[in-house]
Amino acid sequence: MNGADALISTLVANEVTACFANPGTSEMQFVAALDGVPQMRPVLCQFEGVATGAADGYGRIADRPACTLLHLGPGYGNGVANLHNARRAYTPIVNVIGDHATYHRQYDAPLNSDIATLVKPNSIWVKSAETADDVSALAAEAVQASYGPPGGPVSLILPADSAWLPAGGEIARAQRPARAAPRGEAVEAAARALKAAKNPVILLGNQACRAEALKEAARLQAAGITIYSDTFVPRQPRGAGVFAPKKMPYFGEMALGELEGVDLMVFVGTTTPVAFFAYPNRPSVLVPEGCQTLTLADRAEDSVAGLAALADALGAPKEGPVQALALPDAAPSGGLNPYYVGTSIARHMPENAIVCDDAVTSGTGVAAMTASARPHEVLALTGGAIGIGLPLAIGAAVAAPDRKVLSLNGDGAAMYTVQALWTMARENLDITVVVFANYTYRILNVEMTRTGAGEAGPSARKLLDLGDPKIDWVPIAKGMGLPAVSCATAEEFDKAFAAAMAQKGPTFIEAVI
Amino acid sequence: MNGADALISTLVANEVTACFANPGTSEMQFVAALDGVPQMRPVLCQFEGVATGAADGYGRIADRPACTLLHLGPGYGNGVANLHNARRAYTPIVNVIGDHATYHRQYDAPLNSDIATLVKPNSIWVKSAETADDVSALAAEAVQASYGPPGGPVSLILPADSAWLPAGGEIARAQRPARAAPRGEAVEAAARALKAAKNPVILLGNQACRAEALKEAARLQAAGITIYSDTFVPRQPRGAGVFAPKKMPYFGEMALGELEGVDLMVFVGTTTPVAFFAYPNRPSVLVPEGCQTLTLADRAEDSVAGLAALADALGAPKEGPVQALALPDAAPSGGLNPYYVGTSIARHMPENAIVCDDAVTSGTGVAAMTASARPHEVLALTGGAIGIGLPLAIGAAVAAPDRKVLSLNGDGAAMYTVQALWTMARENLDITVVVFANYTYRILNVEMTRTGAGEAGPSARKLLDLGDPKIDWVPIAKGMGLPAVSCATAEEFDKAFAAAMAQKGPTFIEAVI
Repeated sequence: MNGADALISTLVANEVTACFANPGTSEMQFVAALDGVPQMRPVLCQFEGVATGAADGYGRIADRPACTLLHLGPGYGNGVANLHNARRAYTPIVNVIGDHATYHRQYDAPLNSDIATLVKPNSIWVKSAETADDVSALAAEAVQASYGPPGGPVSLILPADSAWLPAGGEIARAQRPARAAPRGEAVEAAARALKAAKNPVILLGNQACRAEALKEAARLQAAGITIYSDTFVPRQPRGAGVFAPKKMPYFGEMALGELEGVDLMVFVGTTTPVAFFAYPNRPSVLVPEGCQTLTLADRAEDSVAGLAALADALGAPKEGPVQALALPDAAPSGGLNPYYVGTSIARHMPENAIVCDDAVTSGTGVAAMTASARPHEVLALTGGAIGIGLPLAIGAAVAAPDRKVLSLNGDGAAMYTVQALWTMARENLDITVVVFANYTYRILNVEMTRTGAGEAGPSARKLLDLGDPKIDWVPIAKGMGLPAVSCATAEEFDKAFAAAMAQKGPTFIEAVI
Repeated sequence: MNGADALISTLVANEVTACFANPGTSEMQFVAALDGVPQMRPVLCQFEGVATGAADGYGRIADRPACTLLHLGPGYGNGVANLHNARRAYTPIVNVIGDHATYHRQYDAPLNSDIATLVKPNSIWVKSAETADDVSALAAEAVQASYGPPGGPVSLILPADSAWLPAGGEIARAQRPARAAPRGEAVEAAARALKAAKNPVILLGNQACRAEALKEAARLQAAGITIYSDTFVPRQPRGAGVFAPKKMPYFGEMALGELEGVDLMVFVGTTTPVAFFAYPNRPSVLVPEGCQTLTLADRAEDSVAGLAALADALGAPKEGPVQALALPDAAPSGGLNPYYVGTSIARHMPENAIVCDDAVTSGTGVAAMTASARPHEVLALTGGAIGIGLPLAIGAAVAAPDRKVLSLNGDGAAMYTVQALWTMARENLDITVVVFANYTYRILNVEMTRTGAGEAGPSARKLLDLGDPKIDWVPIAKGMGLPAVSCATAEEFDKAFAAAMAQKGPTFIEAVI
């Protein structure tokens, strides 16, 4: 057994069984070792941002980490944007980053770089396996560290000689740390404050938006407290049979407008809400003036236990409200827009679907029309780095092969990680991709005004517009191996989407809006 | 004038006139300010790795920096791999990285990250403009720092409020630092050692491979000294009328085989050659045992002056040998391979063309067949991070609109930054793209054996093979707005390539090999 064998055996022994990879020479021992451990599923991604985004989607759905295999500093660099998103989603991921052999680093060969520094901003744990004998223990430590709580990406640097030299010792085991329930005093303080407040709200985020937590939150809503969720949540059930909290609006002034008169905010699984960006003369912190704030459970604590204890303390009913099923009566017709897309999704999306949302400005319309659809789960863009919608779907589909996965993407966002389409085809994943083609970074046209930057002139427009030339998505998707169709009317989209839901395997729909 | 106006005015005043950009909300003031300074050319890239690779190509050809405009940490992250290559090419680049407003950072909004740490491994200078009044002076300092010598990417972090607040003061000026000539003692020592050596070689890299330096190196060759160049050189003239040094072989044992018996290596513009990767039981340092080494000029010094002084000290002839023009007699025929592609390139490539080489294993065939072609320049992959060939061509074409640009790419390499095709179409750049479609990471099949990892089994093969499904490049290129054709025979390629050379504007050729 060499270090690479020890690494993969340790990962598999600790339930890490998917590897999203783009290897190079320094990772060849890892690649070879895969053949000895068939429990590990290797998934090739033709760009590392696909691999890291896929690992994020996998982790959110499987609730255990996938590993990535990345080629030194530049390979990791390509994965940074989606690891930023994963860090903001608190997703466990074990990044395995190949490096030069320990004795070779000193010569500063062309691919040498300061990996330890590069990984720091997006890793909650970093170590390098400087000998083959270290590998198994460090791999188990990496898995354990990735769980947090609240979890996140970890970086295990694997020098080539630590992979190829013989490794002794046992296969090490990781423990999965439990989340601590919030202390009784925190629950009592929240209960007291909520009873005293005139107009309180509870804000949920992260684990507090998972299915079990939402059931408890619904009880609190039944007790008369308004419940909100963060704007962007890593994983949240939605649709029929699920409690639907209000969502914090994206724009700060809208959020503060809605919260006017609120005198208490209690945070569960999240913290003080802030504006996504700063703007001249607009507030950064989205808490009304004079409003008290209180944390029931931070991101690392057990939100479910906290919410249940709070609901009990307040004498809330045993069950709260859930969304009723309400499907659209008829297919939409006319020119296509995001609301019509949402209508068709609501009509045809099967129960238990996973929706990966990187649709940016088009997402609002879809969300509005699918609120009462069959029960599904939504994985949102938690870190603001667009280009996650396609990779996230790959990871979700690998983690849950029996669930239909939808990938909703702005055209600007989809182009970032367009290589993901090929992996969907290769792995024959049950993913329906929708790209909203509006041929512009639409959000930036809005933001340009909001930042006070004024009207876009010809130079500025050159940096916002995607329509010259218009990207033709259908041949691109077909070139990567997917069946693909373009829809410019609601009728066409409804038909194409219904067909996609009726079959298994990857398919691509361009929605020209 | 706000900070953004001051920044762009300062850049333009210091000859930075091209901006490869993918902006977001925090960069809207910069985008708006572009309209006030039409001397700055904004070029939109639909992925930041395209922007940074283009800035590298621009800097290598223009010999002055372009700027990039990147969206916080994740935007920079997407650009890391090609900045790694640029660092290894010593290319001046001014990265402008937008950040949250200074007062907003403390709230850790979703796009917040530790930019200063992330940029460190690939920046030779980093500062953040914490006030609008700082911007102009820091921008000039950034430009100056990017020149080195030997030059490289610098990172100027621009908080949103430093861009939108009023900026006072003058537009600052950068100085371009001169390279120092090697000291007389270094020249004398090299001359003495060369006279005493039985079998000396001179190894050139970086600036020592530019046109003026090669002329002086040719004189030394005429004086009987064998001249080598590094394996990967940022910019090197080639073909008829140019001195052609030998090239250090990629594989270490081949290099050492060639250098057997060499008793002196003199380095000019480079340093001790090392193996690209480490392998079990193979050497890292590519200097024969017992061979003396000596540096005439390091990367920061003036290689041209050093070589000229050395040639004079040795009494070398005033002129050395150059390659004679020798074009292929006839068009190749039969099944396509890289050598036939090279033959057609040699037949039709016009004088003064720029060849951006990311062709990996296919590059050898092309290089062999174009050695005696019309004079051209080659930009190589200096840092080993594939995915540079398409972006590099964008930058070269923007810097030199009157020169024909060729972009040669392995299929695995091209997929990394495939979004570059759209920018070529939008900007109507005179680039001919060739993608060698062999449907595998061929180099890794070779490296697998060399690393002693053994034969690839089914799992390993899944990570090396790109042929299931086969990517169909022509529809992808067309979807991005380029005319495109696929060639499977030498006759087809020769015809397609001749046609591409006969017209202006971007075109795409898939070479199925």
